[in-house]
Amino acid sequence: MKVAVVGASGAVGQEFLKVLADRNFPLDELVLFGSGRSAGNEYEFKGKKLVVKELKHNDDFKDIDIALTSAGASISKEFADTITKYGAIMIDNSSAFRYDDDIPLVVPEVNPDDVLKHKGIIANPNCSTIIMVVALKHIYDISKIKRIIVSTYQAVSGAGAKGIIELEDQTKKIISGHENEIRCEIFPVRIAFNVIPHIDVFLDNGYTKEEMKMVNETRKILGDNNIKISATAVRVPVFTSHSESVSIETERKITIDQCRNALSKAPGVTLKDDFKNKIYPTPLDASNKDDVFVGRLREDISVENGICFWCVGDQLRKGAALNAVQIAEVMIKKGII
Amino acid sequence: MKVAVVGASGAVGQEFLKVLADRNFPLDELVLFGSGRSAGNEYEFKGKKLVVKELKHNDDFKDIDIALTSAGASISKEFADTITKYGAIMIDNSSAFRYDDDIPLVVPEVNPDDVLKHKGIIANPNCSTIIMVVALKHIYDISKIKRIIVSTYQAVSGAGAKGIIELEDQTKKIISGHENEIRCEIFPVRIAFNVIPHIDVFLDNGYTKEEMKMVNETRKILGDNNIKISATAVRVPVFTSHSESVSIETERKITIDQCRNALSKAPGVTLKDDFKNKIYPTPLDASNKDDVFVGRLREDISVENGICFWCVGDQLRKGAALNAVQIAEVMIKKGII
Repeated sequence: MKVAVVGASGAVGQEFLKVLADRNFPLDELVLFGSGRSAGNEYEFKGKKLVVKELKHNDDFKDIDIALTSAGASISKEFADTITKYGAIMIDNSSAFRYDDDIPLVVPEVNPDDVLKHKGIIANPNCSTIIMVVALKHIYDISKIKRIIVSTYQAVSGAGAKGIIELEDQTKKIISGHENEIRCEIFPVRIAFNVIPHIDVFLDNGYTKEEMKMVNETRKILGDNNIKISATAVRVPVFTSHSESVSIETERKITIDQCRNALSKAPGVTLKDDFKNKIYPTPLDASNKDDVFVGRLREDISVENGICFWCVGDQLRKGAALNAVQIAEVMIKKGII
Repeated sequence: MKVAVVGASGAVGQEFLKVLADRNFPLDELVLFGSGRSAGNEYEFKGKKLVVKELKHNDDFKDIDIALTSAGASISKEFADTITKYGAIMIDNSSAFRYDDDIPLVVPEVNPDDVLKHKGIIANPNCSTIIMVVALKHIYDISKIKRIIVSTYQAVSGAGAKGIIELEDQTKKIISGHENEIRCEIFPVRIAFNVIPHIDVFLDNGYTKEEMKMVNETRKILGDNNIKISATAVRVPVFTSHSESVSIETERKITIDQCRNALSKAPGVTLKDDFKNKIYPTPLDASNKDDVFVGRLREDISVENGICFWCVGDQLRKGAALNAVQIAEVMIKKGII
């Protein structure tokens, strides 16, 4: 199995290397691709040095079986043909193909069989969506969900490696009394010791693209266009792991015990939910972990058949690189690759 | 007018001094009280040094007209008689009396006339509640509100001056590579570069006391026990100003333009809401400001008659000290004091 990572120098690209190594993914060769700027960068993988090649319109993907791509939507669109024309399967982390009806959008714990419909490309969902649907799936299996209201607490690494540097740099300047030297390049305003209700661009309806991703992708992954969803996406000064405060309304009454029971057995979920002993997850629990952590489960006292919960996941890992690698694993298991 | 500040060394106590000076509150004398530990501390007020007296069961409040108290619920309960027995009016920032039917709970922009019902004590609401109801009031005046779902992003100074020190201290240790020396004394887990879905104690229904304060106080202040409310209160690594992501359902359809129009004229509100130009408030905008800042106004696409918004307020100022001083001002204006 020959695997390519496209966008190897980015935050998700680096996470791909970790996840492929950690999971002992069955590969014979790993090839790294990046922009002209990152070409030549060297990274270690299982004790071997790999050099990043420049992504070009050529035949470099001829022998590739799987390309894990995370270089932004415009690059994905521009290079999709180049990557897939000799048969490589492209598992794409960008938003380029997520809403195409004939391209599956897959979270292995939720809709693994959708990989069967692929025509060369499989889309990896948005990080916040993945984290939420892993938790929702096992509630949805007990009763359909009518409505979801979610407010997010998203880590800076969701904006890439540069987001991490910007938070670090701004924090150092504030702590050392050089607040006036702060620069905002990645985030629209200062993120250190601040929160920003603005991720991705604003759309005409007043929601951001990030928020509408959660709406549209959740419906597609759960295969239910009737779910009403409203999201507020907020950046917080946390390095890794997104958190989400979620309120749902189910069609039928579900008890909290039923939820706990389902989630305690759910693959990909770690239930950390025991308020009597002050047990609930925070980003620190989830960072560098594969699972989505769920806690604060309680009846929503403002509506019939309502449930509130809090979920946290490493958005570079389960929210991006891990999910894409798990998609590849599902395809191998199903004999597609 | 003789004014006492009880709990003068705390974060809110210090804010009382700032607010009284900034607003040129009509006082002839200011007396500071505190615990045995803080007695003897000196603070400057309008160029004069004031020394904190120890709060005791004696006649120190004999000539006091107004006592602004912020020393925790148990101190407020213990000293209420001592403070009020000679006629001083106690404006209490703790949760001690907020739910007593015969004690008014007042936000001057929302229910100023409730001060008329006082019997010596007026309660100042919880900070998150104040910030939300200042924004809600002007929507409520157009149509009754049926349901509110709120997730908060609360600053560390909500936990007092020690909360600020803990965030600062933990941040310095992480930035300098001494993560293993971090201590958690004020917050249940690390707050630096983390978020914690746990403020105040957990109650039997799985909500925290902080969350249920928002439920019960909002109903009392708006004078409407039919409003259904669910809250999730989350601590974030921000020094000052609480933010809130709010979704409401109104009885009648209200347009976003109607909301904007009402909020643009509302006392105590600064509308910072122009998503097309990326304008919305963050905690940095609200800190050291009197107003509650509102933005991200949009139709809630998940429900009929739904509106989402984002509001931010300095929780030490409008969320505590300022609101209490404004209550005193209303009482002076109405000739009660």
